[in-house]
Amino acid sequence: MILFFIMAGNSFGTLFKLSSYGESHGEAIGGVIDGCPSGVALDMEAIQRDLDRRKPGQSAIVTQRKEPDEVKILSGVFEGRTTGTPIGFAIFNTNQKSADYSHIKDSYRPSHADYVYDQKYGFRDYRGGGRSSARETAARVVAGAIAKQFLAPISFQAYVSQVGEIILDKTYDQLDLSLAETNDVRCPDSEVAAKMEQHIKEIKKQGDTIGGIIDCVIKNVPVGLGEPVFDKLHAQLGKAMLSINAVKGFEFGSGFHGVTMKGSEHNDAFNTDGSTQTNFSGGIQGGISNGMDIYFRVAFKPVATVLQSYDTIDKAGNAVKTQGKGRHDPCVVPRAVPIVEAMAAMVLADAFLFNKTQSK
Amino acid sequence: MILFFIMAGNSFGTLFKLSSYGESHGEAIGGVIDGCPSGVALDMEAIQRDLDRRKPGQSAIVTQRKEPDEVKILSGVFEGRTTGTPIGFAIFNTNQKSADYSHIKDSYRPSHADYVYDQKYGFRDYRGGGRSSARETAARVVAGAIAKQFLAPISFQAYVSQVGEIILDKTYDQLDLSLAETNDVRCPDSEVAAKMEQHIKEIKKQGDTIGGIIDCVIKNVPVGLGEPVFDKLHAQLGKAMLSINAVKGFEFGSGFHGVTMKGSEHNDAFNTDGSTQTNFSGGIQGGISNGMDIYFRVAFKPVATVLQSYDTIDKAGNAVKTQGKGRHDPCVVPRAVPIVEAMAAMVLADAFLFNKTQSK
Amino acid sequence: MILFFIMAGNSFGTLFKLSSYGESHGEAIGGVIDGCPSGVALDMEAIQRDLDRRKPGQSAIVTQRKEPDEVKILSGVFEGRTTGTPIGFAIFNTNQKSADYSHIKDSYRPSHADYVYDQKYGFRDYRGGGRSSARETAARVVAGAIAKQFLAPISFQAYVSQVGEIILDKTYDQLDLSLAETNDVRCPDSEVAAKMEQHIKEIKKQGDTIGGIIDCVIKNVPVGLGEPVFDKLHAQLGKAMLSINAVKGFEFGSGFHGVTMKGSEHNDAFNTDGSTQTNFSGGIQGGISNGMDIYFRVAFKPVATVLQSYDTIDKAGNAVKTQGKGRHDPCVVPRAVPIVEAMAAMVLADAFLFNKTQSK
Amino acid sequence: MILFFIMAGNSFGTLFKLSSYGESHGEAIGGVIDGCPSGVALDMEAIQRDLDRRKPGQSAIVTQRKEPDEVKILSGVFEGRTTGTPIGFAIFNTNQKSADYSHIKDSYRPSHADYVYDQKYGFRDYRGGGRSSARETAARVVAGAIAKQFLAPISFQAYVSQVGEIILDKTYDQLDLSLAETNDVRCPDSEVAAKMEQHIKEIKKQGDTIGGIIDCVIKNVPVGLGEPVFDKLHAQLGKAMLSINAVKGFEFGSGFHGVTMKGSEHNDAFNTDGSTQTNFSGGIQGGISNGMDIYFRVAFKPVATVLQSYDTIDKAGNAVKTQGKGRHDPCVVPRAVPIVEAMAAMVLADAFLFNKTQSK
Repeated sequence: MILFFIMAGNSFGTLFKLSSYGESHGEAIGGVIDGCPSGVALDMEAIQRDLDRRKPGQSAIVTQRKEPDEVKILSGVFEGRTTGTPIGFAIFNTNQKSADYSHIKDSYRPSHADYVYDQKYGFRDYRGGGRSSARETAARVVAGAIAKQFLAPISFQAYVSQVGEIILDKTYDQLDLSLAETNDVRCPDSEVAAKMEQHIKEIKKQGDTIGGIIDCVIKNVPVGLGEPVFDKLHAQLGKAMLSINAVKGFEFGSGFHGVTMKGSEHNDAFNTDGSTQTNFSGGIQGGISNGMDIYFRVAFKPVATVLQSYDTIDKAGNAVKTQGKGRHDPCVVPRAVPIVEAMAAMVLADAFLFNKTQSK
Repeated sequence: MILFFIMAGNSFGTLFKLSSYGESHGEAIGGVIDGCPSGVALDMEAIQRDLDRRKPGQSAIVTQRKEPDEVKILSGVFEGRTTGTPIGFAIFNTNQKSADYSHIKDSYRPSHADYVYDQKYGFRDYRGGGRSSARETAARVVAGAIAKQFLAPISFQAYVSQVGEIILDKTYDQLDLSLAETNDVRCPDSEVAAKMEQHIKEIKKQGDTIGGIIDCVIKNVPVGLGEPVFDKLHAQLGKAMLSINAVKGFEFGSGFHGVTMKGSEHNDAFNTDGSTQTNFSGGIQGGISNGMDIYFRVAFKPVATVLQSYDTIDKAGNAVKTQGKGRHDPCVVPRAVPIVEAMAAMVLADAFLFNKTQSK
Repeated sequence: MILFFIMAGNSFGTLFKLSSYGESHGEAIGGVIDGCPSGVALDMEAIQRDLDRRKPGQSAIVTQRKEPDEVKILSGVFEGRTTGTPIGFAIFNTNQKSADYSHIKDSYRPSHADYVYDQKYGFRDYRGGGRSSARETAARVVAGAIAKQFLAPISFQAYVSQVGEIILDKTYDQLDLSLAETNDVRCPDSEVAAKMEQHIKEIKKQGDTIGGIIDCVIKNVPVGLGEPVFDKLHAQLGKAMLSINAVKGFEFGSGFHGVTMKGSEHNDAFNTDGSTQTNFSGGIQGGISNGMDIYFRVAFKPVATVLQSYDTIDKAGNAVKTQGKGRHDPCVVPRAVPIVEAMAAMVLADAFLFNKTQSK
Repeated sequence: MILFFIMAGNSFGTLFKLSSYGESHGEAIGGVIDGCPSGVALDMEAIQRDLDRRKPGQSAIVTQRKEPDEVKILSGVFEGRTTGTPIGFAIFNTNQKSADYSHIKDSYRPSHADYVYDQKYGFRDYRGGGRSSARETAARVVAGAIAKQFLAPISFQAYVSQVGEIILDKTYDQLDLSLAETNDVRCPDSEVAAKMEQHIKEIKKQGDTIGGIIDCVIKNVPVGLGEPVFDKLHAQLGKAMLSINAVKGFEFGSGFHGVTMKGSEHNDAFNTDGSTQTNFSGGIQGGISNGMDIYFRVAFKPVATVLQSYDTIDKAGNAVKTQGKGRHDPCVVPRAVPIVEAMAAMVLADAFLFNKTQSK
């Protein structure tokens, strides 16, 4: 063995921080959460509920792999309340059978991380993608679910707004967001949801995959969260979202559409209480929350694993023909909704704690 | 005085790190650059050239404010070469005259940071926006220009691809990017550039402002840069771009458009040398560079300062009428081109150094 | 519940980093190790060997509590080699029976962390000291044992040089350090070791405790490790040692004795190969290793838990009389030897990786 | 030029953070201070007073080099108060004349950083020691002086307790510490101070140098500062002190002497108000301040620069004879007193801000 490289960047946040570990088919996925304040009466069911929204096998339009994804808390909680100390946790992998990975082991799946991992680290845990698997996001959901609890009444609601060409053509304030969880695709408009589900099923039948967009709204945010230069609140949200597997874009407030507007149209006029009449700013001005709703959109590419035959190369650089197989998501957005919320909650938790470093 | 708060987030990067300081109309803007390797023969003219691309007063379509923006290196360079020690630098403000800030001092400009700063810090240096001014980005340009030098032959080229509704409808590989610097708007297609300039002049005449988009291409990137979980290379690029004043969105590779594609279309098939036949991935797979060109797009909202009269509130929450004045940019993108490049170079420099933490 | 505080500082290191979790009598003690290079053929027995050197019940002069302290690796290792990804691990607590903690629960043991924890966090996991227990150092031993493996041939050897007034009056180069592990007290001089053991047994009989000193030597260190301003190699070693429970002092090279020397005596004259004729510098000059042996000394106070009756206060501030009980160490140094080595190895691992951030 | 290395570790602190820059004979020494809360009415004279206590040429027993060491604040202060934004500052070097450095340029001074710098960075700014010069500590004194201001009424008092073999044989509570600043050596006992001064003068006459010890006391510390695992308050203090040039050892509370005590003697019995009857703990228990005085001791080796002739090697590894010259300190402790205080204040400032991350 000659290559000798480290992997950095397995922690997220500064004061509220998740350090995650785990490979798709290793012993466990988990992490250490630093910075959860002491005294939080932890609602374990709420944590599990978010994990269940992410877990495989939950509906007909997601991967049929089975993982119970039950979290085991190893530290940091005593007599039902957080003690302020690190919360260690593990989600043991029950579905570790080594199946048939020969098509992954020696050849590189296009648009996956296989090739770059081998180039960077010399070898890789190829079972189910190893560390590059989106299974890693289960740890994020745990940390986000805990953040949500101590941040309440700040609330986080994500939903699917686009699948392929099927677009939910309403803004969040025209929708009853509580309906998002009433259908498998997690779109709050039942008619559009039905079309999306139908489309995903067709795509799946083709052995293909399709992309989508998730919108997220954060409500009841106090004025003052966020650090205004490099760590602007929306910059942290953007990084958080772009760190989720398959994400290709992020916009907040007026976003890409805002570039076509004039300043006189785009400026959010004040009410006398400091709130604004419009909210093109998306709840953040100068990198700091202004008390209005924060909203943003996240673009997900189609999943790279297609159940079709394709041409690729092996480790030695030979052209090979391979057949995609296994149980995979035809579209990632229904299961990614709780991940988007979790990352948003972690960003807000960190900003919230930074905003406490004052002395009156 | 009662409020007592800190501002975090004035540093960017871990191994290659800029810690910036300075207010728009204070004594100086500057910073400390950590992590520049020893032995770099520093090209001071190249640094100044990038500063000149950002500086006010450079053309008819940008603010007519005058600042020479000359950088003074205070440490870290000896006999023309970097010593590895921190590079302290300052750009002294020559244009500090306190003008007339009465319209800013006691009332809040819509969609600026005035209101949130006062809420968070209790008071603010209101002269020219203080710390929230985009003048702070001059420090970034210095750090980025130094990063570019030790990263060569990795190259960074940004350009304007949209101003308001005027769109440059070509991909970067259909353009001669070297032409971007031949016109004031920094668009590599001279016909489109002319339209953009014309449009900006009209907007300016109205005392209004308009948004735009900047594209950026990074070439000659080795395989292996980027940390694949929370610090994915594109997540760091996204945070970097979203931390620039007025940015509302970021996408890379296939971006938002990619959501409408199928996996079978979107996957980048390998050539036998590990390069790919298409590049929807945007040069990054699983958060790690794969050796293909990295490209991304950044959306800028219209500048909030309009030279029109508008309604707003004062510190006491009274409705007041104000008149915008001063010398401001009608469109921020021409001057933001070197800022985008600088932030990209800082991200790559950090990733480059992390990728050296190996031992063969 | 009203109090709401976080605990920071549960991670050690930057590039090679341990994030630890766990309470004395919680579910598990463990951590996440970031920055172990890929490709290390992990010797699990060597890790367990260091844990065994630290574990309770190993001899007559340490606590008779029984804990097998078996480490379970949860991620980061594939086919026997590290993959570069985070190494998650857990040592499950088998000895969790809640015994009788009434004497700890409501009153504060003098010179323990009980009082300050309650003041800072509002309440605490009082079972066996909770997070403040030295049981937390088991996680450090795991991380240090892994660091030792990829740092070889750099070697780490700690030993006991003083127990109470019994002093090993020889320098490390006058001793055969391999003898340290041949007796229970871990002193490489068997005669002195016998006296120390005898003394500890007497102290134990009194229900009392006694302090001691551990010396540590690091050999085969390359020139160049350490960052020369705030993160001087010896400053990192000092912090590492002072973060171990019960440590009250740290000195390296000539240490406190060096203050009585003249510069002309203290200066280490060079040999022509860059090595030095004396080594008062302790292997570090200007914060950077110079290739000579690094050596330092660590002072441990007597353990605060005495098995005698004592006066103290309860939560309400009432004076109460209490009786110390349980199974405790009469002297901490024999078990602290592998902890000192582990912290030293973590410091060197971090410095080693920082020293790789170059490009030739 | 081939070597290509970075220098890390030029920042100190997390929430209250100094990022320093500057070489001994470069343009300027300075830094950026992050985390000073907004609204502090800055006493510039107090800052200068601490700089004057550190500056060369202040008395007959320190180096006769002349540097006014006047600090120029470049940002972060508006209308006399801090704004919460980074405080950039510079101390311009007025004494840059390149003198005669031939004896330093090509040969290595024993027990200096010359050799390791050249080995690590390939070359160095040899003028006056460059970055390795203790001149860098001027930046620390500025940051510490600002920390002291917002931490009041927490107070910091350091003093000289030993020079060579001359020992101030009293504990801090037996002394009137305000007397420390009434003599050149900064020892609060005038008789002992006179002996120390006399000794330093003799040493100086010999062209030699001598070591010493500085004690420091921190009063009015609230309960609860410090993070109890890796970032124990005394571990941070230890690192801070060991990062000062020439420091070889650190102990707090009972320190090295404490190892000879029994637990029953060493334990600090509580008063009913939570204070303790003795203070062997040195004001810190379990890494957290307990409200008692914090006190510690710092050992400084003799300065390496002796004004005698000595044998050494040049860059090529040839043995050469050299003559020490220039204006140097015969004993570093009189000028190091404000540096010790400054580092202590920075540690407390960081701990203070971390201790604010709560929400009641």
